[in-house]
Amino acid sequence: MTYCLAIALDSGLVFAADSRTNAGVDYVTTYGKMHVFEPSPDRIFVLLAAGSLATTQEVVHRLRSDLASGAPCTLATVPHLFEAAAYVGRLNRETQEKHLPALARAGFNGEASFILGGQIRGQPPAVLLVYPQGNCIAASAQTPYLQIGETKYGKPMLDRVSGQPMTLADAARVALVSLDATMRSNITVGPPFELAVMENDSLRIGHHLSLKPTDPLFRRMQKRWQDGLRRTLATLPRFEWETD
Amino acid sequence: MTYCLAIALDSGLVFAADSRTNAGVDYVTTYGKMHVFEPSPDRIFVLLAAGSLATTQEVVHRLRSDLASGAPCTLATVPHLFEAAAYVGRLNRETQEKHLPALARAGFNGEASFILGGQIRGQPPAVLLVYPQGNCIAASAQTPYLQIGETKYGKPMLDRVSGQPMTLADAARVALVSLDATMRSNITVGPPFELAVMENDSLRIGHHLSLKPTDPLFRRMQKRWQDGLRRTLATLPRFEWETD
Repeated sequence: MTYCLAIALDSGLVFAADSRTNAGVDYVTTYGKMHVFEPSPDRIFVLLAAGSLATTQEVVHRLRSDLASGAPCTLATVPHLFEAAAYVGRLNRETQEKHLPALARAGFNGEASFILGGQIRGQPPAVLLVYPQGNCIAASAQTPYLQIGETKYGKPMLDRVSGQPMTLADAARVALVSLDATMRSNITVGPPFELAVMENDSLRIGHHLSLKPTDPLFRRMQKRWQDGLRRTLATLPRFEWETD
Repeated sequence: MTYCLAIALDSGLVFAADSRTNAGVDYVTTYGKMHVFEPSPDRIFVLLAAGSLATTQEVVHRLRSDLASGAPCTLATVPHLFEAAAYVGRLNRETQEKHLPALARAGFNGEASFILGGQIRGQPPAVLLVYPQGNCIAASAQTPYLQIGETKYGKPMLDRVSGQPMTLADAARVALVSLDATMRSNITVGPPFELAVMENDSLRIGHHLSLKPTDPLFRRMQKRWQDGLRRTLATLPRFEWETD
């Protein structure tokens, strides 16, 4: 399994991903699920991938080989983020369809989902979720985050804190806590956690981190969050029957 | 959907349940999912139900009608909590099997899960989860909580706070926060929230609450939790690139 998320703020975009991949419980490996594309100086894309590793790797390979061969539709030629997401969606669907007869015989479907975010100069930045069927939806001011993979465990805290004013660094902390919550509840999501922060109109990854569980920053973050939750629990109102 | 949970502490048991039932999005109703049985003065059971409402209602009806008719195996006659759970499991499986041919033709399976907790005098209290297949597992010191229904959203905060010493009232607050987190992320889980607290060896529900969203206690709890999370977020360590 996988858990990736992206958060869109007025000031920029935050991307985060775990790196655990498993095929059953006895084949657990580590793979980067965050792919950065800078096909020309006027644009940058970050792609997060969840689902069948074979499908996501083939899609990423095709994105790169289309760029290398100068195909008519590539990440370098798409006019807007939306067409970039539609293009990823088409490669996703084509890859799955190519392998589906063989996969179906083995009881698999090879589905994959992606989050594609970034900016093309002169246009607003955007983040889109690409479904296994190839269609996509964009993040918005009302729904500033998108998730793929094992999304449920990390959602409540996103719901509780999103909607308040936040810096990009705050959003990066929120993303790490959401990843940590998911890792604690589901062993198929695991570190290192990759984090990328992109300020609007910078057209570059301003900050990029890969956090191992032993990283002091990550351990301090885990401890403070846990302590904060326990402290908060102690502040909750008493029931009528409590007489202290 | 449904979300129910039970927490077992050294001092007693806490049970909590939402009360929203839906068949699609255009038939949403409110049903109690917590059923208390006191079949004789030496024992008390609390049953939480999730899954097909038709199945859970039939199982509850059979538990009550077996008691009324003086059947050989009833909640009044089972020697231990484990046999009580196995009995609920058998009724669950029988009810599903009875309706399965008709349900399967319509694309349904009528599955249901239960949490059964309580105490029989002279024995330790226990909480068990009864699967749709009729088998069951018990809570333990290492795994002090059990969940049924839409379990993922409310699990991270249980994982983070369980394992620390807690009063029954603390555990009741934890259960309410876990229900609230689930309700915010999934509209098929909703109030009123029912809460029951049973002290060990009391053989009775010491405290029983049904909390509507307008209840001042519930609103204060929601607000303090949200404020606490946001405050905690502000205490998390800064990244190296932050220079304030």
